[in-house]
Amino acid sequence: MQSEKINIKKKFMKFKDHWSPKIIAELNDYQFKIAKIKGEFIWHKHDNTDEAFFVIDGKMEIKFQDKIILLEEGDLYVVPKGVEHKPYSKNECKIMLIEPKGVVNTGSLINDLTKNTEDWV
Amino acid sequence: MQSEKINIKKKFMKFKDHWSPKIIAELNDYQFKIAKIKGEFIWHKHDNTDEAFFVIDGKMEIKFQDKIILLEEGDLYVVPKGVEHKPYSKNECKIMLIEPKGVVNTGSLINDLTKNTEDWV
Repeated sequence: MQSEKINIKKKFMKFKDHWSPKIIAELNDYQFKIAKIKGEFIWHKHDNTDEAFFVIDGKMEIKFQDKIILLEEGDLYVVPKGVEHKPYSKNECKIMLIEPKGVVNTGSLINDLTKNTEDWV
Repeated sequence: MQSEKINIKKKFMKFKDHWSPKIIAELNDYQFKIAKIKGEFIWHKHDNTDEAFFVIDGKMEIKFQDKIILLEEGDLYVVPKGVEHKPYSKNECKIMLIEPKGVVNTGSLINDLTKNTEDWV
């Protein structure tokens, strides 16, 4: 098996849509995904896995029932499994997500915001 | 379970030693580690897991039996499990590693370069 070098900034130039994570690499049964986010997402949780957010460019917030976490470039945050959270970004923010294969962006909810989990860029 | 916001650049200010990965966060049974590297590491492999390198600052190379991959800031590279590799950096380079808990930095070799796998920063 061979692997490719992946440049995150080049990958971000290949799409414009918001709240639609794209896979860029796999590590065992985990995936690295990148996303552009802007505006309000929905309250959701992932019952079976933690989820890592790493901010590449911009600022975002993750709202929890009891607090709001502000994340800026170079910040890493792991949302524990089962914890309700609501990502938000006033302006466009570029993030990397790390989570197991097959994780659905809307967690335990399926609705219009639910994206294909096999979308590579 | 609560989680903490982790700023990568601040974490890098807390240590100076080279080739000594420090854990900064856990995601299920995986860990995020950061390391400062400079000079030659050893040929090694990880028989049971892939290993992700993400360059935060600087430049590094990963030598393989048949090629050399140059990685710069914002580059992500996944070394497949079982593949012999030799990291190298002429000048100090700051990297993030993502791999399962308990992975030994020298892979299937244990020698003077082998570091404690439970070293947090």
